[in-house]
Amino acid sequence: MTHQDEAFLADWAVHSRFGAVPGTSGVDRQAASIADGEQRAWFARLLESHGFTVARDAIGNQFGLLELVPGAPYAVTGSHLDSQPTAGRFDGAYGVLASAHACFRVAEELRVDPTRARFNLAIVNWFNEEGSRFKPSMMGSSVFTGKMALADALATRDSQGVSVREALDALGERGDLDGLDVASYAEIHVQQGRSMEEDGVTIGLVEATWAAHKFDFRVTGAQAHSGSALMADRRDALLGAARLVVAARELVDDFAEGELHTACGELNVYPNSPVVVASEVQLLLDLRSPSAEVIARAHASLMRTIERVQRDDRVEIEIVSEHSWDQNPYPEAGVELALQVADDLGLARDRVMTVAGHDSTNMKDRVPTVMLFVPSVDGISHNLDEYTRDEDLVAGVDHLTGVVRRLAAGDLVADAGDAREREEARPI
Amino acid sequence: MTHQDEAFLADWAVHSRFGAVPGTSGVDRQAASIADGEQRAWFARLLESHGFTVARDAIGNQFGLLELVPGAPYAVTGSHLDSQPTAGRFDGAYGVLASAHACFRVAEELRVDPTRARFNLAIVNWFNEEGSRFKPSMMGSSVFTGKMALADALATRDSQGVSVREALDALGERGDLDGLDVASYAEIHVQQGRSMEEDGVTIGLVEATWAAHKFDFRVTGAQAHSGSALMADRRDALLGAARLVVAARELVDDFAEGELHTACGELNVYPNSPVVVASEVQLLLDLRSPSAEVIARAHASLMRTIERVQRDDRVEIEIVSEHSWDQNPYPEAGVELALQVADDLGLARDRVMTVAGHDSTNMKDRVPTVMLFVPSVDGISHNLDEYTRDEDLVAGVDHLTGVVRRLAAGDLVADAGDAREREEARPI
Repeated sequence: MTHQDEAFLADWAVHSRFGAVPGTSGVDRQAASIADGEQRAWFARLLESHGFTVARDAIGNQFGLLELVPGAPYAVTGSHLDSQPTAGRFDGAYGVLASAHACFRVAEELRVDPTRARFNLAIVNWFNEEGSRFKPSMMGSSVFTGKMALADALATRDSQGVSVREALDALGERGDLDGLDVASYAEIHVQQGRSMEEDGVTIGLVEATWAAHKFDFRVTGAQAHSGSALMADRRDALLGAARLVVAARELVDDFAEGELHTACGELNVYPNSPVVVASEVQLLLDLRSPSAEVIARAHASLMRTIERVQRDDRVEIEIVSEHSWDQNPYPEAGVELALQVADDLGLARDRVMTVAGHDSTNMKDRVPTVMLFVPSVDGISHNLDEYTRDEDLVAGVDHLTGVVRRLAAGDLVADAGDAREREEARPI
Repeated sequence: MTHQDEAFLADWAVHSRFGAVPGTSGVDRQAASIADGEQRAWFARLLESHGFTVARDAIGNQFGLLELVPGAPYAVTGSHLDSQPTAGRFDGAYGVLASAHACFRVAEELRVDPTRARFNLAIVNWFNEEGSRFKPSMMGSSVFTGKMALADALATRDSQGVSVREALDALGERGDLDGLDVASYAEIHVQQGRSMEEDGVTIGLVEATWAAHKFDFRVTGAQAHSGSALMADRRDALLGAARLVVAARELVDDFAEGELHTACGELNVYPNSPVVVASEVQLLLDLRSPSAEVIARAHASLMRTIERVQRDDRVEIEIVSEHSWDQNPYPEAGVELALQVADDLGLARDRVMTVAGHDSTNMKDRVPTVMLFVPSVDGISHNLDEYTRDEDLVAGVDHLTGVVRRLAAGDLVADAGDAREREEARPI
């Protein structure tokens, strides 16, 4: 362990325990919660103690800025501090602190030799990546990149009726930073899968996101007394929804192992009373695969199931909304840059795909982007027991430092001085 | 239509629209809601305008009392004014207003000829029969009959954290009536089934409650990323719960039509996030049948399904609580009394069973009890479209008036003057 590694792990010990769930190694730190606010305040002080200026934009994205080249765009690196309810302490939070330490190291180097800096440095903590309290996920980076309207995001309410605007204002976390001139972006994250651990890979070079098709279904039946109504008279929305949940799981068995992932994680019942047959159930169901062809076949099969459930159980199943994407590549130049950095450092690396979305999914559509993984023990994620070993954490910081060093020097950006290029790179 | 019928229907038009759901003929008037409080206030004024004294006990049961025989016990009749969220306007509310008008009519007769009164008259509006906002159902009559501790009931909280005590106090609906010396009890309700309508029966003489076995299940799995976790690694609590919901419905097909009713009306998912495999689902599931043997066979089959789901889906299924009852008869003397009243009035009548529970289920274990039904069009219940025809409503009031007349005269009570009998009859 170097002195730098120890400094990182010391900060990590504090950083990763905001919103700690007693008796576990995990956290409950949903977006704009009290715990999120406490961590943001601590993180701001950490950034300032290393000479970075803290700023927030109108959707609560938190930035640490260091201007080395007056007026130049920024090489940005970051992730998110919010968590799912009762989740692991690594997801997102590791990427933010790794970004901070990578920038601290590169900043020290550039202060010694300012001629090596082509871009300024920024660390970002994106607001509400998880989307558990406020939907949709990746809200902060979506607004930043213009994919979601600020007003819509601020008006989004949680299940208690609290809006994003109210929750951020309660923490003083809405600011006046009006966009940032971004040259390039890097993000590091725990894998949330087990392939790297199994293959002995320390640095995952993320080359693509799995294809996905996500549904928001509404199943409609009719309220009835759950005891006295004749079974033949019932139109049970929860029964219809349960059949979809089971069908989604059974779809997986039609394909080779690992070809298709399906899930329903959220399901809401109305009126949800023990003596009332449900009249409406809303559920979110998704299909994911590295193969668009597999998704298409699974989609067709699911539609046939829907027809059958509608007919047999006398319910209506409506697709309230759906969105899908094909296998979505990360820019090859970023993968190559990360590969060279890993080889320079002698770190075991391999190309991997990500099943989950990340804020980099938004950023890569706007600026040259690098997405990195470190291993996750047993692939456990969105779970209090999520774990990544210290040696992998510090290797990830070392690697990200190498990436940030190159991004700050202008790598990945064809002509860093070209005004048109910079204009396109300005996300909002 | 007699003048008395018109008086009832005029009050009914007002009474049944508290908590009206705009654009529908139904109501949303959960226990101790604002609408419940408004209706209680209106109902108190109605009772007082007919010379009854309004009193409330410590769990918010609302009584209209008329003392005709100083110190004598009370012939009590009533039902409940609370509703499921978005429900019909007849369930419970009809029984309370029918009880009031029956007592108004009998009171007029007894004021003319006081020698015919052996007991005093009481109308009751039981608190929280539905159990949708505060669990369990039949809370008011359970506390009144000593089946549930007052302190436990008052401490019960709704999903927003509001306690029964707080909700009742906000309406000023907790009182100091300390029990009531009850001689006998009558209740009238809409059938919530279609058999009376199909058979041309106006008055249902309820002779028994179906047998039932009710489960509160907890399905436990493990949180995981709903996209990236390998399917084989998942322990999906919502999948396990969905399999139980489907299995409960499929159980019905193992029996002859009408032999078994099953339902799951309430299901809660944790953490209920679109990108997290659920770690815990709580669901309420019940089996109902007129036959204890059918319940036993269905129960055994369900237990086999649970074993299979636990094994195949790698989840744990725990029975948090369960309660069951055999076919539960109403006292035969009450059925006979109601039959005679129907025959005297020339009303088509038949013996029926109730699938649903009623407050009379509590009262019949303590005092002589009569339970009556009027028809329900298409058996629609716990639904905004619940409907009973005016002619059936007024026939029910006529019939209940005959029943109350006999109860006030001392019918069903072996020796109305026996102090020991009265002591046993004092519910709290």
